[in-house]
Amino acid sequence: MQLLQVELADRSYPICIGDDLISNAGLLKKTIQGRQVCIVTNSVVAPLYLEALKKTLSDYQIDQVILPDGEKYKTLDVWSKIFDTLLSARHNRSTTVIALGGGVVGDMAGFAAASYQRGVDFIQIPTTLLSMVDSSVGGKTGVNHPMGKNMIGAFYQPKLVMADISLLKTLPARELSAGLAEIIKYGLISDSDFFVWLENNIDQLMQGNVEALTYAVKRSCENKAFVVGKDERESGLRAILNLGHTFGHAIETAQGYGNWLHGEAVAAGMVMAADLSWRRGAISETDLQRIIQLLIRAKLPVKSPANMTDEEFLSLMGVDKKVMDGRLRLVLLQAMGKAEVTSDINLEQLRQTFAACRAA
Amino acid sequence: MQLLQVELADRSYPICIGDDLISNAGLLKKTIQGRQVCIVTNSVVAPLYLEALKKTLSDYQIDQVILPDGEKYKTLDVWSKIFDTLLSARHNRSTTVIALGGGVVGDMAGFAAASYQRGVDFIQIPTTLLSMVDSSVGGKTGVNHPMGKNMIGAFYQPKLVMADISLLKTLPARELSAGLAEIIKYGLISDSDFFVWLENNIDQLMQGNVEALTYAVKRSCENKAFVVGKDERESGLRAILNLGHTFGHAIETAQGYGNWLHGEAVAAGMVMAADLSWRRGAISETDLQRIIQLLIRAKLPVKSPANMTDEEFLSLMGVDKKVMDGRLRLVLLQAMGKAEVTSDINLEQLRQTFAACRAA
Repeated sequence: MQLLQVELADRSYPICIGDDLISNAGLLKKTIQGRQVCIVTNSVVAPLYLEALKKTLSDYQIDQVILPDGEKYKTLDVWSKIFDTLLSARHNRSTTVIALGGGVVGDMAGFAAASYQRGVDFIQIPTTLLSMVDSSVGGKTGVNHPMGKNMIGAFYQPKLVMADISLLKTLPARELSAGLAEIIKYGLISDSDFFVWLENNIDQLMQGNVEALTYAVKRSCENKAFVVGKDERESGLRAILNLGHTFGHAIETAQGYGNWLHGEAVAAGMVMAADLSWRRGAISETDLQRIIQLLIRAKLPVKSPANMTDEEFLSLMGVDKKVMDGRLRLVLLQAMGKAEVTSDINLEQLRQTFAACRAA
Repeated sequence: MQLLQVELADRSYPICIGDDLISNAGLLKKTIQGRQVCIVTNSVVAPLYLEALKKTLSDYQIDQVILPDGEKYKTLDVWSKIFDTLLSARHNRSTTVIALGGGVVGDMAGFAAASYQRGVDFIQIPTTLLSMVDSSVGGKTGVNHPMGKNMIGAFYQPKLVMADISLLKTLPARELSAGLAEIIKYGLISDSDFFVWLENNIDQLMQGNVEALTYAVKRSCENKAFVVGKDERESGLRAILNLGHTFGHAIETAQGYGNWLHGEAVAAGMVMAADLSWRRGAISETDLQRIIQLLIRAKLPVKSPANMTDEEFLSLMGVDKKVMDGRLRLVLLQAMGKAEVTSDINLEQLRQTFAACRAA
């Protein structure tokens, strides 16, 4: 088992990464303060892992909330059901809310933990590669509003994140790839050595090798923790974590959420950011090709949809076609392993990137 | 204008107390960071003070949410309407939510500010004496759940509290008295000099004297801030703020919420706590009578309802009639101006208190 401490003063917490942690009662018991736990999971994960977790926690009063699966259920209404269970089962302020699932489950359970009696303990057991390397670090919790994603929520840190690599055995291949997109992102924005390691180990990762996945998850969390530790409430530096996301969000919105996985859209978006960075002279053409090749080996898309025009991109990115007055801020590469946020964007270069990255 | 700084490290904020502050544009502008404000108020306060506040803030994009009046609307559903307004009017992360109202408005607006985009600035303009001396300090925000009051919420500190004493001119006399109950509480739990001051100035306070009210609000907030500063997240000491509340909640529950105002129930509850403290030898009979007389001069009830039996009290206070195994914790006086939390309660003495304090 690998251990990583996320340092955030009195909100610091450990991330444990390893094989078969879900049956490790000692690890959980060391963190749980009271006698009650409430497991929040969803209808896909529950049949796979809920019983195993309940067996590990058999010494506690266990209550459970099984949410419907999917981003469209990440609403205030569905969220409020967590409180119905907590109150019906008389959970007190020393209870622990445990999220067993991917990003949606973690976001909703975390926001419920933040809000129940103004804050109770929270443990995350991510079940997707994406949530292991993304929502494990940063403390972002919340729900969507019909008018915007993640508009209602809290910054709330867990007491423990338990990244059990063995849970990834049941993860669909496409979701494994989507998680790898975020992992590759860390190599690009802040860790060129890790990028090289990924080039050398991408096949083991794709095959589900536990040792390789443990290392990749740990190093990703370290990179994210380093960035978040400098900017917990997202006032500046943390924006570099959004490499590929401005382009990616435009793709997700244009194609309808759910048709492209988030990680897939980010992959294509990272290629676009890298392409523009190359046009600006920040990285070499060789490096651009290395990025594209690594994403291809991770079975990720490296082109934007054929039907998305320049104007559609610009509109979805919030840019007025006629003026380019610095309102568009993009995360671009300054070098391999180094990112910057810039509003100094050349529209002509941006159009060249759109053209070069569009699927035939 | 009087100024009090609530010291909570990087969450410190000022409370300004004085006359006609609502028209003081400079005070608000110094605190508001962005160009947008969202005023949350209710249907009783809006006709009285909303236009005046909007006039003061005419330089900003102002949007407003007018909640229905009353504790029964302090629900997740009603709360969610604040987000509808914030999002429809495209408020960004630099917006400021302003609560203009009493405790319910402050709790709901504060929890919305805590949760909108994971936290935006929050200003409180309390319009009742109770909210000036109670919810101004402590950072408690939230909504009720059908199964429990204040079960969903956050600890979230405002950037500014503006206690405009002139707003109390329209406050019903019964609500002024209810606010005085909490003010008298601070004298009892932590400030015997203030208790003497209240004995000497209760008539001016009842008559709405601005200078006296300004002083009483300031000194109350100082006392609460001192306690909260030592225990921001309510792990111990802060419990002394609940003097009279265990008895008071039992009365509120038995009589139906809203029939007794919270401050009224707390007043009767404080007499019960003082009576039991006297039976334990902690305060003299003279002091017990001083407490009762001061509450009477504030037109507050000093007796529990005639129809509430010992058994009803014990049951609502969570005590099993047969055993008194230390599960009942009460805030009692150790002396005038000094409170303690104790579970060392003598059931016989408690029954004597019930009998002595019951209305004929």
